[in-house]
Amino acid sequence: MTPEGGSEASVSLREVGEFAMIDRVTGGRVQPASTLLGPGDDSAVVAAADGRVVACTDVLVEGVHFRLDWSSPEQVGRKAAAANLADVAAMGAVPTSLLVGLACPSATPAAQLEQLADGLWAEAAVVGAGLVGGDLTSGPVIVLSVTALGSLQGRAPVLRSGARPGDRVAVCGRLGWSAAGLAVLGRGFRSPASLVNAHRVPEPPYAAGPVAADAGATAMIDVSDGLLADLAHVARGSGVTVRLRSRAFTVPARLAEIGSALGLDPLRWILTGGEDHALAATFPPGAALPQDWTEVGVVEAPDADGPGVTVDGRPYDGDAGWIHFAKY
Amino acid sequence: MTPEGGSEASVSLREVGEFAMIDRVTGGRVQPASTLLGPGDDSAVVAAADGRVVACTDVLVEGVHFRLDWSSPEQVGRKAAAANLADVAAMGAVPTSLLVGLACPSATPAAQLEQLADGLWAEAAVVGAGLVGGDLTSGPVIVLSVTALGSLQGRAPVLRSGARPGDRVAVCGRLGWSAAGLAVLGRGFRSPASLVNAHRVPEPPYAAGPVAADAGATAMIDVSDGLLADLAHVARGSGVTVRLRSRAFTVPARLAEIGSALGLDPLRWILTGGEDHALAATFPPGAALPQDWTEVGVVEAPDADGPGVTVDGRPYDGDAGWIHFAKY
Repeated sequence: MTPEGGSEASVSLREVGEFAMIDRVTGGRVQPASTLLGPGDDSAVVAAADGRVVACTDVLVEGVHFRLDWSSPEQVGRKAAAANLADVAAMGAVPTSLLVGLACPSATPAAQLEQLADGLWAEAAVVGAGLVGGDLTSGPVIVLSVTALGSLQGRAPVLRSGARPGDRVAVCGRLGWSAAGLAVLGRGFRSPASLVNAHRVPEPPYAAGPVAADAGATAMIDVSDGLLADLAHVARGSGVTVRLRSRAFTVPARLAEIGSALGLDPLRWILTGGEDHALAATFPPGAALPQDWTEVGVVEAPDADGPGVTVDGRPYDGDAGWIHFAKY
Repeated sequence: MTPEGGSEASVSLREVGEFAMIDRVTGGRVQPASTLLGPGDDSAVVAAADGRVVACTDVLVEGVHFRLDWSSPEQVGRKAAAANLADVAAMGAVPTSLLVGLACPSATPAAQLEQLADGLWAEAAVVGAGLVGGDLTSGPVIVLSVTALGSLQGRAPVLRSGARPGDRVAVCGRLGWSAAGLAVLGRGFRSPASLVNAHRVPEPPYAAGPVAADAGATAMIDVSDGLLADLAHVARGSGVTVRLRSRAFTVPARLAEIGSALGLDPLRWILTGGEDHALAATFPPGAALPQDWTEVGVVEAPDADGPGVTVDGRPYDGDAGWIHFAKY
């Protein structure tokens, strides 16, 4: 027997109400020491120990950035948090907190929103951050706007504009895994799990951001749209040409197998696939690369075509990355 | 003659592209001194001089919180900024910056987004804040998630939980104007302009927040959902009963006239109307109220029904405020 109006599992956001729902997803959670005042007031208060705060915002839209038949609500929450936490790490900073603006249909099951919040909390916990505030309102589809705050701990921020001719180009973290997982899902498969899960929940190398900054990184970026597309931001921002060597990239066996099965070149996933949130950075010629970073190219003065990115000396003739505005 | 593909006025976001659009709405703007690193990198860097940052997020959804046939894009931008800046002020803090997560149909005219950004910048300029970052993506309707950051300048944050029996209750800023304007618009009218414009663009008393904190305010809240609804948060947070005297509220002539014309009680707008973003606060019995604050009631120990809000000694029998989740 279930009570009239449906079982607990089917209780909707409308039935629970905004404020009770916010209590459900924030109550009883453990905040890090940097959360001086957590959710429940007009604003939160977060420590910014060195007198500066790093801040970024990223939006995920149902049907554009995720599908609930391909990802669980918890995975969507993790992915939304990861995209932002990686943007903080790419400055050379350590994330402290998340704020979440969420619009969703009022018929959305409350349990689904709790799982989504579980995902946000779980990913924040990976880096010791807390969920300190946000807003919940109704809308036609799920729109999840996450803001991450972070601390530079006294470091200078590592910008996109600092790459200099002679610098070494290096990457840290997985490349192409999410794109390969998406290709698998798009063809109706649910395995291999390692690739599908990489698409569902990225694993950004958060700690590598501050480590790279301490090692003297001259420029750094989070690979969200694809390595070539994101290094193009570094190239333009720094007024340089980034020259990649395709043989510097190891193609993981899993990508090679699936590329072969689907008749696709796995190097394209590595060079143009987004959403893995690897880090790409440039280091001065003399600097030793930190552990877990792989050298993949070099920075040169811009050639006649102006700043850009080349692969094996030529502009890459594949898709350069994620095409925005494809659906709505 | 217009170029093939339509006039400049009809160029859409899809045609302009995400990154060029972001350049359009952030390029050439003047940032305040608190913006240490503005838009264009993975994250922004904002000054947080006293080692803490105040942060809040508020979401506006097209069709739920605004209609583009009732408000211009610039007015929507101003309103979205105001809702967040007022939440910072309600802590006793001064806003420093905004981050904006925006989802909208890719067919949205680029000019409309520029106007929306103009509104965000204009309202931020009122308080000396800057727009430091954000994200732009496609979605089925316009969803605008704004995060505001602010500085307490060494003050203790004024919480909802600090009201004590004996405190005086006071308000600062307009109450009921937005609700009256909405009532007018809902009946197909476009005047009186003062009320309609109050609905389109609130005028929160931003500076009154830090002033109230300095004057010893024990609790403070931004009136976004309606005075009774928001004071109920203070009552519950503080474990007290807030007793309002209806005669303490002056009914502005404009509200009285329109209430009479529409056959509605203007006091209901004052007590339950949201979106004016007035500030409500409690002050110790001995404290002098700062200029522009009006005393409207007193804080008492909770009565037998527990913490709550009464008007003239009784629970108010009208709507308590904005009903969330009415549309989607």
